[in-house]
Amino acid sequence: MERIIHVGIIGAGRIGKLHAYNITRFVPSVRVAGISDIVVNEELKKWAAGLGIEKITTDAMDLIKDPAIDAILVCSSTDTHADFTMAAARAGKHIFCEKPIDLSVAKGMEAVKVAEEHKVKLQLGFNRRFDHNFKRVRDLVEAGKVGDVHIVKITSRDPAPPPPAYVAVSGGIFLDMMIHDFDMARYQAGSEITSVHAVGAVLVDEEIGKAGDIDTAIVTVTFANGAIGIIDNSRKAVYGYDQRVEVFGSEGCAQAGNDTPTRVTLSTADEVISDKPLYFFLERYKDAFVDEISAFAQAILTDGDVLVDGMDGIEDMVAALAAGKSLKEGRTVTIEEMKRELNV
Amino acid sequence: MERIIHVGIIGAGRIGKLHAYNITRFVPSVRVAGISDIVVNEELKKWAAGLGIEKITTDAMDLIKDPAIDAILVCSSTDTHADFTMAAARAGKHIFCEKPIDLSVAKGMEAVKVAEEHKVKLQLGFNRRFDHNFKRVRDLVEAGKVGDVHIVKITSRDPAPPPPAYVAVSGGIFLDMMIHDFDMARYQAGSEITSVHAVGAVLVDEEIGKAGDIDTAIVTVTFANGAIGIIDNSRKAVYGYDQRVEVFGSEGCAQAGNDTPTRVTLSTADEVISDKPLYFFLERYKDAFVDEISAFAQAILTDGDVLVDGMDGIEDMVAALAAGKSLKEGRTVTIEEMKRELNV
Amino acid sequence: MERIIHVGIIGAGRIGKLHAYNITRFVPSVRVAGISDIVVNEELKKWAAGLGIEKITTDAMDLIKDPAIDAILVCSSTDTHADFTMAAARAGKHIFCEKPIDLSVAKGMEAVKVAEEHKVKLQLGFNRRFDHNFKRVRDLVEAGKVGDVHIVKITSRDPAPPPPAYVAVSGGIFLDMMIHDFDMARYQAGSEITSVHAVGAVLVDEEIGKAGDIDTAIVTVTFANGAIGIIDNSRKAVYGYDQRVEVFGSEGCAQAGNDTPTRVTLSTADEVISDKPLYFFLERYKDAFVDEISAFAQAILTDGDVLVDGMDGIEDMVAALAAGKSLKEGRTVTIEEMKRELNV
Amino acid sequence: MERIIHVGIIGAGRIGKLHAYNITRFVPSVRVAGISDIVVNEELKKWAAGLGIEKITTDAMDLIKDPAIDAILVCSSTDTHADFTMAAARAGKHIFCEKPIDLSVAKGMEAVKVAEEHKVKLQLGFNRRFDHNFKRVRDLVEAGKVGDVHIVKITSRDPAPPPPAYVAVSGGIFLDMMIHDFDMARYQAGSEITSVHAVGAVLVDEEIGKAGDIDTAIVTVTFANGAIGIIDNSRKAVYGYDQRVEVFGSEGCAQAGNDTPTRVTLSTADEVISDKPLYFFLERYKDAFVDEISAFAQAILTDGDVLVDGMDGIEDMVAALAAGKSLKEGRTVTIEEMKRELNV
Repeated sequence: MERIIHVGIIGAGRIGKLHAYNITRFVPSVRVAGISDIVVNEELKKWAAGLGIEKITTDAMDLIKDPAIDAILVCSSTDTHADFTMAAARAGKHIFCEKPIDLSVAKGMEAVKVAEEHKVKLQLGFNRRFDHNFKRVRDLVEAGKVGDVHIVKITSRDPAPPPPAYVAVSGGIFLDMMIHDFDMARYQAGSEITSVHAVGAVLVDEEIGKAGDIDTAIVTVTFANGAIGIIDNSRKAVYGYDQRVEVFGSEGCAQAGNDTPTRVTLSTADEVISDKPLYFFLERYKDAFVDEISAFAQAILTDGDVLVDGMDGIEDMVAALAAGKSLKEGRTVTIEEMKRELNV
Repeated sequence: MERIIHVGIIGAGRIGKLHAYNITRFVPSVRVAGISDIVVNEELKKWAAGLGIEKITTDAMDLIKDPAIDAILVCSSTDTHADFTMAAARAGKHIFCEKPIDLSVAKGMEAVKVAEEHKVKLQLGFNRRFDHNFKRVRDLVEAGKVGDVHIVKITSRDPAPPPPAYVAVSGGIFLDMMIHDFDMARYQAGSEITSVHAVGAVLVDEEIGKAGDIDTAIVTVTFANGAIGIIDNSRKAVYGYDQRVEVFGSEGCAQAGNDTPTRVTLSTADEVISDKPLYFFLERYKDAFVDEISAFAQAILTDGDVLVDGMDGIEDMVAALAAGKSLKEGRTVTIEEMKRELNV
Repeated sequence: MERIIHVGIIGAGRIGKLHAYNITRFVPSVRVAGISDIVVNEELKKWAAGLGIEKITTDAMDLIKDPAIDAILVCSSTDTHADFTMAAARAGKHIFCEKPIDLSVAKGMEAVKVAEEHKVKLQLGFNRRFDHNFKRVRDLVEAGKVGDVHIVKITSRDPAPPPPAYVAVSGGIFLDMMIHDFDMARYQAGSEITSVHAVGAVLVDEEIGKAGDIDTAIVTVTFANGAIGIIDNSRKAVYGYDQRVEVFGSEGCAQAGNDTPTRVTLSTADEVISDKPLYFFLERYKDAFVDEISAFAQAILTDGDVLVDGMDGIEDMVAALAAGKSLKEGRTVTIEEMKRELNV
Repeated sequence: MERIIHVGIIGAGRIGKLHAYNITRFVPSVRVAGISDIVVNEELKKWAAGLGIEKITTDAMDLIKDPAIDAILVCSSTDTHADFTMAAARAGKHIFCEKPIDLSVAKGMEAVKVAEEHKVKLQLGFNRRFDHNFKRVRDLVEAGKVGDVHIVKITSRDPAPPPPAYVAVSGGIFLDMMIHDFDMARYQAGSEITSVHAVGAVLVDEEIGKAGDIDTAIVTVTFANGAIGIIDNSRKAVYGYDQRVEVFGSEGCAQAGNDTPTRVTLSTADEVISDKPLYFFLERYKDAFVDEISAFAQAILTDGDVLVDGMDGIEDMVAALAAGKSLKEGRTVTIEEMKRELNV
């Protein structure tokens, strides 16, 4: 492999296009060699041409089989993630797969194993680990600045709920939304989750309740290293995307606040006004999306470990499923029990 | 009763002395007519003289029976709270009682009922409701600024753990420490707690574990109005007393941060440095201790409701006991179940 | 002298009453033995009785001559400051004198000299040196945390202008308002001012202009130690009392922001709102007023130096007069030139 | 002209390369058609190829005369700015010229006039007007949120001084560094400067003093609309690039603070630590450099006004020269006097 990694992107939806744009603009070590989508129309062709992407196809296998392609970005619909991951692994391609790797843990596990057997890198799209604020917190924790970790607190609230139709097929708040926070919790604690307990409610939108989901949730977790943690989620924070992390330990406390568009305050006769947080994930995690791809490329080029691997994705899913079970049954659910049930 | 309320203080320990000092200095509508303690020595006499307190006795009943005294502050040891409260009520005195009203809910209930029967005010010493920051949050919530309450988050961490000997008789972290936070949660949510779930660990001091307690805890609660909440406690935050509250709702989010000694920042070649929070409760709640007594006086003078009444204390205790049970049994415990068990 | 200092207060206006209240409530080492005012009515008598002040008189000399009185607080009208200071000094009393010591520098100098000759303490009422924020900045500077001082920046804005009638007799913005900031500048720089340059405008209230004064001003200063500084003043900041200090040096920068009533923020769909600064000097400098009297008492009891002495007051006045001259003549005015002109 | 603007860049130094990179990456409406530099070596050719720049030449006139080029970016050494601007204007090209347009005001004026005569756009490289923070302040001011402007305060401090050799040819702190702040002051006040007064000192580096310059300066300004202003500069702020703006008016105060790499704070037993400001202009004004080019393109495409035109550059220079004169002569210098002296 030369020093430029050629990638094929499967799926030209919002996230696939974002990665293509980011790679073209900001990741000089990577080139988008091709893109596939089940529908290739004129608009998509024009968009691809604008980014200098030469190969465009309706058949993802055209990319997977292409010997000029070193790695595959799986950005298609969730039900195809595991299959494309396995196909790419068998073709000897490194894989960057959007989360979750599958809605079934068993099938996700299978994909992870196939990737391992073929000794290809498999990185999952948990972009928040690459956020400048959260990474800084983790760096402080790793440098021992907070001492032993005692409490991890994560607040994660979206600015607006998804449409109820989406909610119905999303897998629910724990698998669709809080899975990011389980991943963040494990990352910050530097330890695996051992049990979860969930409370939740439908407070934002009754339609979400009718779709069988909740829109507001708090989950407590325990970690293998003895620490404990809290995650709170809401589908609707009217003031914008609220993404905060706090790690409290024996020697101190590291806290990451929200980014804002400016550092301007206005003092008036009535009040002092400052900026709301950046609106949503495209704004807040703009650089993180670039950095996760750069890190993926770096792992390939140096044959190093990826920061979020396939088993991370599995652990996050098990925690999410355990949270759902906890909510349903009104009790603490251990990860061990959940894994036993899932045959993992 | 004239416009000046004459109070007798039972118990001249740290908190009794603090109230005496505060009343003398800052509460013009109240006068300390007498104080009692089981030990009256020269030092105490001198201290009382310095504040202009004329009556000093070893017998609390001297105060309770004194016709010149309008109200009693019960600041003695916890095991005497309920008895003095009932004695004072029967003597027709209004009562300000430090928390908890008793370690037994049943006896606490009895004291509350006696106070009700004798139509005297009974206010409990949950001073944090009078904190300028938390009161401002509550005012915003009541004014509808956050809309319907969805999530209440409370962080409450002490700067240093109490001696293990104290821990052994304290009733445990939930009854001794987190009871303040249950009260705050109910106050901010404007609703009663319906269930709790606790996780906890011994991370600060092994001696606390040996004494049968934990030093780090997270409790999730559900409220009758549908909201959910989180409380996290640690016995040791090396950076000082960490007391924060956040109320998140359909229209916004109100957050109270920590007070600091100054508003000074120092920017150097290495970092930007600012103040740690005020060290502990005497500093942080300095004004709140004054304001709770002023409010008690005001309730008496206007025959108004007290802000924290006897039943608040009972509800807080039940929540604390339920949290202990949840921790022990590893499951959600409803308040209804707990009350049934306690015959409340 | 015993360990309790007995003071007589000349002048029962707002500031005299404030000192009497503060001493009675918060300064145990000082007792108010008497107070004088040109008008003693029933209301004043009642107020004095409420604070336990026994002696009340229309003749200030009753206090100055009273052998039971150790120190005099001169809180009368400005035109009497110097005379009472000299009379008190001649009677061997220590003196706390509100600023300015006189509107004439020559007479002020005379008073300072008389106090020196009689070896009594003379402290001026520049209360801001005792503000917790500004004192913290000074402590950092003295501890070398900012290295050599390069730039001192002071922002000082009142919430509302005084009545034009007051402005007419106030001595103008530099002598009435900015004199505090000249004192702060000298205190923070740890060095004397050597020249000043002023620009100013009438932007707040035309009546102030008609009274011959300005309401908005910026003054640059140079210091003997080579540092330079800026002071900006406005008679009207609609958002409240804006009192900030910044000391920038070779090793860093210390900044003091405004105090606020609470640490609460409210995030809504429209904006993030926080508290305005404390409204005016009674709120912002509440503790500083107490601390300046405590420090005065301490200086007497330990025979130590006062933090703001008579010559500080003279230097501040010369700077204020030089600023007025600079504004009028549109040029830099040196302190040396100003002193020569004033025969100081 | 088509909707894509083709530009030629004169000068492939740091700033020329920055613009080329930014345009290629972030400004889709502009294409870099060619670049010139007095030295074209292999490294430069390789760099240009990497950005897809086809034309590379040692003769700037190759770009100016190229009919395929719509606009010229003058990024060469200062002494060539005016000549290239005039040549480009005569060739009918729009011009983006780095500041200053010339070290001679007269020659600068000539260039401005030639551009006007040929009806081409001329935008100067005062990038800070495009900073998100400062633009937000200006937007608030324009929206009337602070009412009438009374005081403009600008702090502008570099993290490290330039080499003394550079200082010697830089034109001095006012022309080299504070000229940005004069431009910012005029922009924020929405009014022209009418007089200046400067104080300054050599406190950072004696070599700067030996080179005939100062390294620390404060300048007060008056504006035509009656407002007054302050600018403070230092060549060395050890904590990083300190770039703050404050506009105070009859209805409020808008303040822009520094950007920081993260929003993380670390609380420890010793202190609370947060991030230093972004290190220097490449970090702080990263987006502003892109936005100024986008705005230039927009002005061309819509035949609109540029935000910083040639006369802005002239006014800024006159203010800078007046500040130098004020420092030298120790007096206020009016812009009118300065312009008379410069025959402007």
